[in-house]
Amino acid sequence: MSGTVYGVGLGPGAQDLLSVRADRLVRGGRHVAYFRKAGRPGQARRIVEGLLRADAIELPMEYPVTTEIPISDPRYNTCLSAFYAECTDRLLAVTDAGEDVVVLCEGDPFFYGSFMHLHSRLTGRTPVEVVPGITGMAGAWNATGMPITWGDDVLTVAMATLPEEELVRRIRDTDALVVMKIGRHLPKLRRAVAAAGRTDTAWLVEHAAMPGQRVTRLADVDTITPYFSILLIHGQGRRP
Amino acid sequence: MSGTVYGVGLGPGAQDLLSVRADRLVRGGRHVAYFRKAGRPGQARRIVEGLLRADAIELPMEYPVTTEIPISDPRYNTCLSAFYAECTDRLLAVTDAGEDVVVLCEGDPFFYGSFMHLHSRLTGRTPVEVVPGITGMAGAWNATGMPITWGDDVLTVAMATLPEEELVRRIRDTDALVVMKIGRHLPKLRRAVAAAGRTDTAWLVEHAAMPGQRVTRLADVDTITPYFSILLIHGQGRRP
Repeated sequence: MSGTVYGVGLGPGAQDLLSVRADRLVRGGRHVAYFRKAGRPGQARRIVEGLLRADAIELPMEYPVTTEIPISDPRYNTCLSAFYAECTDRLLAVTDAGEDVVVLCEGDPFFYGSFMHLHSRLTGRTPVEVVPGITGMAGAWNATGMPITWGDDVLTVAMATLPEEELVRRIRDTDALVVMKIGRHLPKLRRAVAAAGRTDTAWLVEHAAMPGQRVTRLADVDTITPYFSILLIHGQGRRP
Repeated sequence: MSGTVYGVGLGPGAQDLLSVRADRLVRGGRHVAYFRKAGRPGQARRIVEGLLRADAIELPMEYPVTTEIPISDPRYNTCLSAFYAECTDRLLAVTDAGEDVVVLCEGDPFFYGSFMHLHSRLTGRTPVEVVPGITGMAGAWNATGMPITWGDDVLTVAMATLPEEELVRRIRDTDALVVMKIGRHLPKLRRAVAAAGRTDTAWLVEHAAMPGQRVTRLADVDTITPYFSILLIHGQGRRP
């Protein structure tokens, strides 16, 4: 009898924004896996601090260092692919022994997450269940205290890793906007928002739903922001 | 001392997909308000069936019948505006008496929800707190068992109420797609997806995360779908 891999969405960061289902799985999990950078505690693990069973067996999955390899270099994909295959084997070793394992996922597991790379490798080899979560972007627009979309608004979600001209085009052609994976792309993103004429209505949210939460107008941002900050432009659609 | 209005996101439908914070507020709420169509139980109320306190005082807010009035007619907005103003007064009557009131919201309150029309009217008049929720679309892509976005995918969220040519253009110009508010717009949406050449990869999800959940390829859909069904096209972005 094979165990089950649970890919559990933790939501944007606050412990009480886990779903009831996720909360039960995290608290009850005997094997708990999560991604992190080498030598760092990891954001997913930090969210569940204090929730795990005393006898929980933790499986940190440490990303290989890829900062030296350009993302377009085939070695980048090869390196990550080998990493995900190895993580998959570690999870299968648990489920083959008949035990379940909970994989902690920030936000929602099926929305730009690393878990998807395990999910595609695990499918057909062991039972996998995914628990949806509140996305980081929902945490971010909630932090601004303003609705993101009204009426017939079109919402575009884009990554700051896109080319600058592509960003300009997308920002011009949408009512509401979410941009993620910002980090070192902030200068490019600022130029793109300015070229689209929308700097005055753009907001940057850092650490949404966490103690360090900060909401700043893009025009007032002066420091480099962490990788998990989110840029928002709120829609202004129909409102009776 | 004024009470607080809590706009509480309930998530896509399953009770254990409420967040821990939402679950506590719903179970503890003495005054519980929710939207519904006249004579119908209402989807938000249905989600929390069995969770409310025995002595909870319910405030159903029944949408005025607007089916006779075209959405472009100014009387449509006037009618809805008067309704939201009246709902606001009912909530303020509770908070002015020093009591809190929980407003049940399907999905996430700041994402295409009716609560936003109360939020904008309540702000500055009484304390308002919003609890984010798992969106209906996250429930829908979870139901398909496939990630919605990978790598640098662009996600477009659009309403089926948009003009057909606008839908075609949006569907052509995105990696991943979510379309909501489908209902009687299904024939138009089907034509738009076909014109964009994406019928083969489009899915329709009805009653996501609920007992009647149904996931169908758009090509195989033959019946009219309820208003809260969601169309999805999954992104196919970078995956090591």
